[in-house]
Amino acid sequence: MAVARLSIDDLAEIVKSRKGADPGTSYTAKLLDRGVGQCAKKFGEEAVETVIAAMDGDKQAICSEAADVLYHLVVLLAAADVELEDIYAELGRREGTSGIVEKARRGT
Amino acid sequence: MAVARLSIDDLAEIVKSRKGADPGTSYTAKLLDRGVGQCAKKFGEEAVETVIAAMDGDKQAICSEAADVLYHLVVLLAAADVELEDIYAELGRREGTSGIVEKARRGT
Amino acid sequence: MAVARLSIDDLAEIVKSRKGADPGTSYTAKLLDRGVGQCAKKFGEEAVETVIAAMDGDKQAICSEAADVLYHLVVLLAAADVELEDIYAELGRREGTSGIVEKARRGT
Amino acid sequence: MAVARLSIDDLAEIVKSRKGADPGTSYTAKLLDRGVGQCAKKFGEEAVETVIAAMDGDKQAICSEAADVLYHLVVLLAAADVELEDIYAELGRREGTSGIVEKARRGT
Repeated sequence: MAVARLSIDDLAEIVKSRKGADPGTSYTAKLLDRGVGQCAKKFGEEAVETVIAAMDGDKQAICSEAADVLYHLVVLLAAADVELEDIYAELGRREGTSGIVEKARRGT
Repeated sequence: MAVARLSIDDLAEIVKSRKGADPGTSYTAKLLDRGVGQCAKKFGEEAVETVIAAMDGDKQAICSEAADVLYHLVVLLAAADVELEDIYAELGRREGTSGIVEKARRGT
Repeated sequence: MAVARLSIDDLAEIVKSRKGADPGTSYTAKLLDRGVGQCAKKFGEEAVETVIAAMDGDKQAICSEAADVLYHLVVLLAAADVELEDIYAELGRREGTSGIVEKARRGT
Repeated sequence: MAVARLSIDDLAEIVKSRKGADPGTSYTAKLLDRGVGQCAKKFGEEAVETVIAAMDGDKQAICSEAADVLYHLVVLLAAADVELEDIYAELGRREGTSGIVEKARRGT
């Protein structure tokens, strides 16, 4: 049965569960096994493809590439031992400092 | 009062609420007003900085840059009129096709 | 016999000579045939790999990735109908404006 | 008097001459002084901007961004102690191995 929806939080749970799995049967385990450099490379390449899909104005391609970006970002975080919750806490701190995201980022 | 946690879903809500706001008072509105190209540029630059932070092994920098990537990805999606839920549906379809994310991506 | 040295200018000549060649026998012709988007994607991906090689401090990898960047930049310029000489003219203008490259770029 | 033309080889000479110069008076010396990470960041960002200019089909922007890419690539090579000539030798090796650049790269 198809899963209707998989959020970035779901992805983070799945990816964490693959840490230490057999690189021969799990693409995620294989990527993690190859280290931060390989994970960063895949993430960076998918980011480039997202930029190109956006410039093309191709919504289906944007969906597909953004999905790849989220997946490879989550894998990169796992490779670097950083929790997605730490990113959410960082975003919360910025919001909390100034009331709205906009003000927190003004001038950057 | 500081917000303890701001997820990517929260970000998407906030960014959508800024569409059409005054570019003079909202950084998000200003970015959206400058169009997809400018949003793609910021997203791409933050992706590069995330790669560099990961290669440096600097966890605090990874948190900060990944937060920037999530924020600018959400802004880019808004500029391109793509919903975050569409990305989650795409991720769900991949998972549903083959039972696990790993199998869906094998061979890519 | 091995060619001892191939400069970016040599590359630009070779790439231009491939324009319109059979995509089945020339990798360059195949890339050009697929259009600016595909050429931009390859260039962007090689740039990411160069960043990673540099962060790794791996000189051999830097050489290899920078070679890929130069080749794919030249292909991208050909796909976009921009001459390498136009880039050199732009660099010359910057230098000419202020006497040294440094001054021309100060404040950027 | 304006310089009519500045090639990547000219850039490499100028950048090498700035190594060890006062970071307060030379943008290049300042970049080199900040290390490989900062140089890689600037190079990566300019690569993203080149991709966007190419997707926009804006020839003047492509010229300007490609000029930035060449400059920041040369600075990155200097920061990493890699010679532009080493890149040309690598390109020559590829060409020499198989007679034409195309064959050398086939299948990649």
